Amino acid sequence: MSKILKGIGASDGIAISKVYSLVEPDLNFTETSIDSSASAEEVQKFKDSIHKTKVEITKIRNHAEEAVGPEHAAIFDAHLLVLEDPELITPIEEKITDQSYSAPQALAETRDEFVTMFESMDNEYMRERAADIKDVGKRILANLLDRPLPNPASIDEEVVIVADDLTPSDTAQLDKQFVKGFVTNIGGRTSHSAIMARTLEIPAVVGTKGVTDEITEGDMIIVDGEKGDVIVGATEKEIKAYEIKAEELDRERQELLKLKDDETTTSDGIKVELGANIGTPEDVEIVLENGAEGIGLFRTEFLYMGRNELPTEDEQYESYKAVLERMEDKPVVVRTIDIGGDKELSYLDMPKELNPFLGYRAIRMALDNKNLFRTQLRALLRASVHGHLKVMFPMIATVEEFEEAKALLIECRDELKADGVDVSDDIEVGIMVEIPSTAVLADEFAKVVDFFSIGTNDLIQYTFAADRMNENVSYLYQPYHPALLRLIHNVIKAAHDQDKWVGMCGEMAGDKTAIPLLVGLGLDEFSMSAGSVLKARQQIADLKKTDMEQLADTAMRSPKSDTVTALVKEYTERS
Amino acid sequence: MSKILKGIGASDGIAISKVYSLVEPDLNFTETSIDSSASAEEVQKFKDSIHKTKVEITKIRNHAEEAVGPEHAAIFDAHLLVLEDPELITPIEEKITDQSYSAPQALAETRDEFVTMFESMDNEYMRERAADIKDVGKRILANLLDRPLPNPASIDEEVVIVADDLTPSDTAQLDKQFVKGFVTNIGGRTSHSAIMARTLEIPAVVGTKGVTDEITEGDMIIVDGEKGDVIVGATEKEIKAYEIKAEELDRERQELLKLKDDETTTSDGIKVELGANIGTPEDVEIVLENGAEGIGLFRTEFLYMGRNELPTEDEQYESYKAVLERMEDKPVVVRTIDIGGDKELSYLDMPKELNPFLGYRAIRMALDNKNLFRTQLRALLRASVHGHLKVMFPMIATVEEFEEAKALLIECRDELKADGVDVSDDIEVGIMVEIPSTAVLADEFAKVVDFFSIGTNDLIQYTFAADRMNENVSYLYQPYHPALLRLIHNVIKAAHDQDKWVGMCGEMAGDKTAIPLLVGLGLDEFSMSAGSVLKARQQIADLKKTDMEQLADTAMRSPKSDTVTALVKEYTERS
Repeated sequence: MSKILKGIGASDGIAISKVYSLVEPDLNFTETSIDSSASAEEVQKFKDSIHKTKVEITKIRNHAEEAVGPEHAAIFDAHLLVLEDPELITPIEEKITDQSYSAPQALAETRDEFVTMFESMDNEYMRERAADIKDVGKRILANLLDRPLPNPASIDEEVVIVADDLTPSDTAQLDKQFVKGFVTNIGGRTSHSAIMARTLEIPAVVGTKGVTDEITEGDMIIVDGEKGDVIVGATEKEIKAYEIKAEELDRERQELLKLKDDETTTSDGIKVELGANIGTPEDVEIVLENGAEGIGLFRTEFLYMGRNELPTEDEQYESYKAVLERMEDKPVVVRTIDIGGDKELSYLDMPKELNPFLGYRAIRMALDNKNLFRTQLRALLRASVHGHLKVMFPMIATVEEFEEAKALLIECRDELKADGVDVSDDIEVGIMVEIPSTAVLADEFAKVVDFFSIGTNDLIQYTFAADRMNENVSYLYQPYHPALLRLIHNVIKAAHDQDKWVGMCGEMAGDKTAIPLLVGLGLDEFSMSAGSVLKARQQIADLKKTDMEQLADTAMRSPKSDTVTALVKEYTERS
Repeated sequence: MSKILKGIGASDGIAISKVYSLVEPDLNFTETSIDSSASAEEVQKFKDSIHKTKVEITKIRNHAEEAVGPEHAAIFDAHLLVLEDPELITPIEEKITDQSYSAPQALAETRDEFVTMFESMDNEYMRERAADIKDVGKRILANLLDRPLPNPASIDEEVVIVADDLTPSDTAQLDKQFVKGFVTNIGGRTSHSAIMARTLEIPAVVGTKGVTDEITEGDMIIVDGEKGDVIVGATEKEIKAYEIKAEELDRERQELLKLKDDETTTSDGIKVELGANIGTPEDVEIVLENGAEGIGLFRTEFLYMGRNELPTEDEQYESYKAVLERMEDKPVVVRTIDIGGDKELSYLDMPKELNPFLGYRAIRMALDNKNLFRTQLRALLRASVHGHLKVMFPMIATVEEFEEAKALLIECRDELKADGVDVSDDIEVGIMVEIPSTAVLADEFAKVVDFFSIGTNDLIQYTFAADRMNENVSYLYQPYHPALLRLIHNVIKAAHDQDKWVGMCGEMAGDKTAIPLLVGLGLDEFSMSAGSVLKARQQIADLKKTDMEQLADTAMRSPKSDTVTALVKEYTERS
């Protein structure tokens, strides 16, 4: 009997494959002592698991190096050092030999002693070491108990990954060649794993509560990323039906690909620009395959995450240059560092905050850490000669913040020029509009910035005062709400009055219910997951701008989100 | 040599008095065992400290009962029970007698055992018990070590309190007769302690970093709540000068009191209403003394806090009735429960949230806990016949939320009427405007609500996406920012188009730089700390509405907060 589990469709497409369970095994064990005659054997068991762990970590390390760059392998080098540290290894072996501890118990106790000691030191470096020992200790213990941790880097056959949630470091290890889809217990359309799935163009369903309890490693599973359906225990007939559906999607995809080199215009001939959002230089290939006309959002956090120290100016320069060169003369909007909020860096001493989404993040943190910010700005300026760069500051709430950031950029430019370094002379400098104050005061901002890009994910959560990650209030994440449409309209009108352009780089830009409204509101640039670009181009070609203007106007004068979605639905069904 | 410490003036007035330090003593002690011959003496020492603690807690309990009502004494009754619990006391005495532990060590170890055990149980009631044992254990230990905890309820002479911060339970214990002022290390103008100081009309300076290190119990200290100055080690001459200043303020106060029974009108004859904000029924007396024309915000959280269970319908009814009766025919706007965010209730199982200010709070929580909400609404409806009640829902973000809350109110009214209970027939039902979406969509809300009250404290923090309690981003708490003024203007215009009135109950309503702008924007009702009412009446009498309209208009078209404050300053100096 098959069973259909309902989740949230996070990335379109059909996947039919074996389950790879990324659920961590239970590592509890019974505390028993061993017979002292068995201690040599127990020590050997421990040594074997150290060796096994070393092989695993080396594999993960090499995969990370290849997939995301050598600087991201550093953390695993640190883990390998832990495995060879006699200060940790010797006391474990002694506990086995001298005190007749079982290997798991000797390991667990020694690990806990070190972790407690390091964590209690008021020193970021030592706390980092504590985290390393915890991580490595868990892996050794798993091998000792013969309940190995899942290891996505080792996947070498086609699978659908099933997990509670996927962390950024999990997804960094995934190999698109083998990972055909994924399903998670938690998350929503804008969660990290969902965005990642769309970037990698892998079918995914998130928020499928309890799916990890329903599957067994190796079972067949079907993922319908558009409908949000997950089928376990599918019959032959069902599998056949989904295979047909998958082929159909593939044909549609081939049709869409014919639009790859087209411009994006409405049925009455108004041109808009379709860009893609990327998170690493590697994402550029998918962007080009999908015929995006530019990169509307290049997130630069990847440079700072999953490592032990700040990236250098040269490292950053190489990354920016790689993207700009590959995109040739197409525009690339690079967003400066947006760390803080839910993204922490272990090597920066970031304050613990009661409300991190309302806290010290993005431009607030950058303006307060001028050296860190300068390094990024200098790298960007140096890279500017290799393509069509636009610089964008995130989380701008006041005109003063923009002025301060722009002044720093100009200061860096003048320094570089004085040193004889080539810098492009026409870099547009814009801001994210993701804070209500900025949307409301857009006319004043439009006088000083070169462009706006509306970040709907944050703008929505601040406009409704609701954390989009919080399930208790996620009903307030309302992209079609008339209040939000009015704010977007205000931004676009203000920009156009000053002959500036407005983009959108939040999830909303690629949403098919939102697109008619955004065309009507006059949005100039839509930046989305690469996989949505061609569909959006197709959709926009069927929309008449003047009709959409009327639709948007009526929507803005509606009282509720439901009224707006009903309007769009009515229009779509009529045409 | 005197020393002037600079803080944030939180509540006007001069206080000159002795320091009462509310800093908790260091309760660390050296672990030593005792000679077994001394164990009887050690047990006696322990018993004495139990007795001493009992006397202290009884005093605090009685004070709480008198000051804030019997239901708030319950938590201290629980503490008294802990002191008599043989399950806790016996093992401590046994550790002293049988194991030669010192009394502090026996106490600390036993306390920790119980706390760990109770906290590990997945049961809210047991965790509550753990908290009780921690609290009481600390007090016994302090007495054992002869380093008694500060006990604000025992103050019986005039003092200025100096503390790191004041918690709600600290302030509940203060006796206005003796507490002449207070100074804290942390906090800002909108922190709990600052609001409390203004409600009690006690001079206060907050955010005076490091003040607790500069004072000694019993020293003379001068607090200038308007300038934010704290003077320690003042000379005779300085004391004299401040005494003269205090007398001057007193004369000014007497002058102001002549305005007590006046209406509030601008110089060109436009009438506005001045209300006061209150937190408990006891605050009403100060409201009346200060000639407020109503209560613009009656916070009802006091009913739910500092106790072990939900307040009953009858308890709530009595509180509402007391306020309504005392205010006679003057309007009383009661805000329904606003728990969540930074206000937790130990006896409700509230989710731990990553961003509580963007979370499950106020109306979101109330609509999800209909029984709790019904109890409050029924109590309010029953009390409505005793005065001029208006009901206000907090944190409304969508029209649907208002509709749902209002429907519940009507359901409760119909139920009561069906049971033959008298209910007033003209209760206005309004909302707080404290979420940007609601300010933007005010025209749609104005069709369905009876009134708006703008809650600036929250509206500002959401509009700028900045937690006002977070020092790293508090620079973004900008009440004079043109974006905020535009939102306020939008709300007022929308309301007036539908013949509805608009109040403001955030800190901004009583701020002398904001008042000219708010008069210009057409605000109908200003609700503030009682102590600010007469000053505001005096200030408004000198303002010409038509001039203020121009001022507000120019302010809304300014790019920055600084431009706005400069405009107001220029106007004030000119006139």
